[in-house]
Amino acid sequence: MKYSYLSHLECPKCSSIYSAEEVQQLCQCGSPLLAKYRLDEVKTNIKREDLQRREKSLWRYHELLPVHTIENVITLGEGYTPLVTVPKIGAKYGIDDLYIKDEGIIPTGSFKARGAAVGVSKAKELGVKTLAMPTNGNAGGAWSLYSAKAGIESFIVMPKEAPAITRVEVHISGSHLYLINGLISDAGKVVAHLVKEKGFYDVSTLKEPYRIEGKKTMGYEIAEQMDWKLPDVILYPTGGGVGIIGIYKALLELKELGWINEEKLPRLVAVQAEGCAPIVKAWEEGKMESEFWENSETNAFGINVPKAIGDFLVLQAIRETGGCAISVSEESIKNSQQEVASLEGNFICPEGAATFAAAKILRENNWIKPNETVVCLNTGQGIKYPESFEVESAVLEKGEAIIL
Amino acid sequence: MKYSYLSHLECPKCSSIYSAEEVQQLCQCGSPLLAKYRLDEVKTNIKREDLQRREKSLWRYHELLPVHTIENVITLGEGYTPLVTVPKIGAKYGIDDLYIKDEGIIPTGSFKARGAAVGVSKAKELGVKTLAMPTNGNAGGAWSLYSAKAGIESFIVMPKEAPAITRVEVHISGSHLYLINGLISDAGKVVAHLVKEKGFYDVSTLKEPYRIEGKKTMGYEIAEQMDWKLPDVILYPTGGGVGIIGIYKALLELKELGWINEEKLPRLVAVQAEGCAPIVKAWEEGKMESEFWENSETNAFGINVPKAIGDFLVLQAIRETGGCAISVSEESIKNSQQEVASLEGNFICPEGAATFAAAKILRENNWIKPNETVVCLNTGQGIKYPESFEVESAVLEKGEAIIL
Repeated sequence: MKYSYLSHLECPKCSSIYSAEEVQQLCQCGSPLLAKYRLDEVKTNIKREDLQRREKSLWRYHELLPVHTIENVITLGEGYTPLVTVPKIGAKYGIDDLYIKDEGIIPTGSFKARGAAVGVSKAKELGVKTLAMPTNGNAGGAWSLYSAKAGIESFIVMPKEAPAITRVEVHISGSHLYLINGLISDAGKVVAHLVKEKGFYDVSTLKEPYRIEGKKTMGYEIAEQMDWKLPDVILYPTGGGVGIIGIYKALLELKELGWINEEKLPRLVAVQAEGCAPIVKAWEEGKMESEFWENSETNAFGINVPKAIGDFLVLQAIRETGGCAISVSEESIKNSQQEVASLEGNFICPEGAATFAAAKILRENNWIKPNETVVCLNTGQGIKYPESFEVESAVLEKGEAIIL
Repeated sequence: MKYSYLSHLECPKCSSIYSAEEVQQLCQCGSPLLAKYRLDEVKTNIKREDLQRREKSLWRYHELLPVHTIENVITLGEGYTPLVTVPKIGAKYGIDDLYIKDEGIIPTGSFKARGAAVGVSKAKELGVKTLAMPTNGNAGGAWSLYSAKAGIESFIVMPKEAPAITRVEVHISGSHLYLINGLISDAGKVVAHLVKEKGFYDVSTLKEPYRIEGKKTMGYEIAEQMDWKLPDVILYPTGGGVGIIGIYKALLELKELGWINEEKLPRLVAVQAEGCAPIVKAWEEGKMESEFWENSETNAFGINVPKAIGDFLVLQAIRETGGCAISVSEESIKNSQQEVASLEGNFICPEGAATFAAAKILRENNWIKPNETVVCLNTGQGIKYPESFEVESAVLEKGEAIIL
C-alpha cells in the first residue's frame, strides 16, 4: 500500500507529460500542469469507507495527494472544515437546503492553508530550498507559515492594500516580505523577475502543480460530508480560480474511482465582484479565455485578480458542469456578510459573502430551484478583515450603568 | 439511547443539588455549579470506540454534554481541533514529545467558541431570550455570534483595550456592544447591575453552569487524539480558568467511565502573566483562594483577570494532579510567539504563547523531565491581535525589482 498514487504531470492544453519526481513549473506551452494518479490502483486498494476512521484533516486523502512519504508532510491540522446548514439564510433566500462550507476554520484562517500545506510538503519532498510568490495576502500568510515549518526560505510580494494582518503572518514566520504599490499582477512580475534571476521555485498560482492538489480536497470533503451524495450547486468566489478547478478535478477523480455514482456533477458557479469580473465577461461572451480586467477594484480583496492564468480551466469547469459565472455588487457583498453573521453566526470574509450574494440572485432568477441543495464556499475568517466594519459604541466609565 | 445523560447540577463547595431543567446561576453559597451526568448509564451504553465514526466537532461527546435534544444544538462546527507535534520547539526546549493543542482552528478563532456553543445551546433549551456578559473580547465575540444563530438577544460589555476585532464580531452579529474604561472586573459590575435590573441571563464566567461543559471537551479530545493515553503535563493559560477546571472535570469523568485507565492524571499547569498572577500568588502561598490583583496588566489580554470566581477550583485542579502555577514575562510571551511561528508555522495568540514560555522555564528547572509528553494549549489565532506586531517592509513601485 503506497502513501501516494501520484503518477505524473500532464498538460491539460497540449497533453504533454512531465515527471512529478523533479521540480516543474508551467508546461512549455505556457499552460499549468495537472497531477495524475494511478486511480485504477487506488480503486483496487482503497474503499471510501476506509476513510471513516482517518484523521480529520485533508491528509485523510493521502493516496490522492502528491506527497510520497509521510515524513515530508507539513501539517498544522488543515482541512475537513465544517459543512453546516444555514437554514435561516436559506429561508430568506428561498433555498430549502443551503449549506456553508466554512474554510475559515483552518490554520491561518483562510482556505489558502490547503494549497500551502500540500504545495510546501511537495516542495520539501522535491528538495526546494527557496520559494517566491505574489499574493493578495492570505496565500502569502499561509505559504510563509508552512514554509517556516518546512525550513524553506520564502519571498512574498503583496499589494500594499492587502489585508494588514497577512503582513504580520509573513513577518512573524520569518519570511521576506515586500509590498507593492499595485495589484497582484504587478507583484507577479516582480516575482517572475526574481525567480529568473535567482532560480527560486515560483509558487505563483498554478505555476507549480501542487497547490491545486491541496485545494481539490474541498471537493472530496463536500462529497464525503454529504455521504457521497452531491449537492446540486457549489458557489465559489473566483480570483485565481484554483479552488473551482480543484473541486472539478476532485469530482472527476471521485467519479473515476466510483466513489460517487451520480451522472450529474454539481453545477459549479464562479462568483466574482462587479469591479473585477474577467471570468464573468468571458463566460457571457462565450469565450474560452478571459481578458485582463483594467483598473480592477473590490473590497473582496482575494478575488481582485484581473487575469488568471487558469482562466480557461475555470471556464471549462463551469461549462462542463452546466454551471455559470456571475458578478455581484460591493453593496450586496457587505449585506450578505452582515446577514450571514447576524442570522447564522458565521463571521465570513467578503469573498465568501460574495457567494451568498450570488446564491440570492440565482435563486431570484430561478437558475437555482427552491428544492436544490446548494453549497456556498466561504474562503476565510471575517476576522482577517478588521477594516471592513467601523464599530461605534458607547464607552462607559467605571461604575457607570447601562440604561435601557 | 439518550442524546444527553445530564442528571443535575451540584455545588462543589457546599454540595447543594439543583435542577438542570431550569435556569440556574450561582449556588446560594456563592460558588459556581457543576453539571453532573449519569455516568454509569453512559458507561453501559457507549464505548469509546463508538466515537470514531462521529462528526469532527465537540458534539461527538453529546452524551456527556448538557443539551437534551439535538434540535437545540447551535453549532458552527466547533471542536476537535488539531493536536500537532512541534518537534523543532521541542528540540529547542529539550522536551522530546511536545504538542500544541491548537484552539485557533475553531469558529471565531478562539476556544471561547466551545463555551459559547454549549452555553448558548443550553440557554436556548432552557428558553432564555436575553443574555448578558462581561468579556475580555473573545468570549464576547463568540457568545454574540452563537446567540445570533440561536435567536437570543445579547448584551456584551468589554474593556475598551480588548482586541479591536472582537468589537467587530459583536457588532456584526447584531448584539448590543458596550465598551468600558476599565478591566473585565469593572465590566462584570456593569453586567451584574443590568442583570439585576432586567432579569437577563448572566453568562459571566462560571455564573452559568454550561460554558465549562463546552470547555471540558478539550480534555476529552486530548485523551481521544492521543488514543486514550494521556500526556504527562498540560499547560493552560489561566484567566477565568474555566478551561483548566473543565479539563480536570473531563479527566475525572473519563476515569469514572473507564475510558482512561491510568492512575496518574496529567499534571495541570496554570500559566499566568507576571502582570496579572493572582492564581500563582495563591499557589505559592499555599492558599485555597486568590486575592484581587491590583493594577493588573498584560498584553496577553485574555488572561488579564484580577480575580477569578472559580479560583478555588483552579487551585484544586493543579493541587490534585500534582501540577503547579507559574507566571511568565511579557518579553518571554512575545519571544515564544515569534519562535513558534517561525519554527512551527503556528501563528498563536499571546495567551497561548505564555504556555510555551512556561514550558521552557519548567523544563529548565527540571519540573518537566526531558522524556515527558507535554501539551501546550493555544487558546486562539494570532490573527485576532494584529496590533501585536509592527511590520516594516519595503514598498516597491510597479516595475521595480527586488535586489538581493
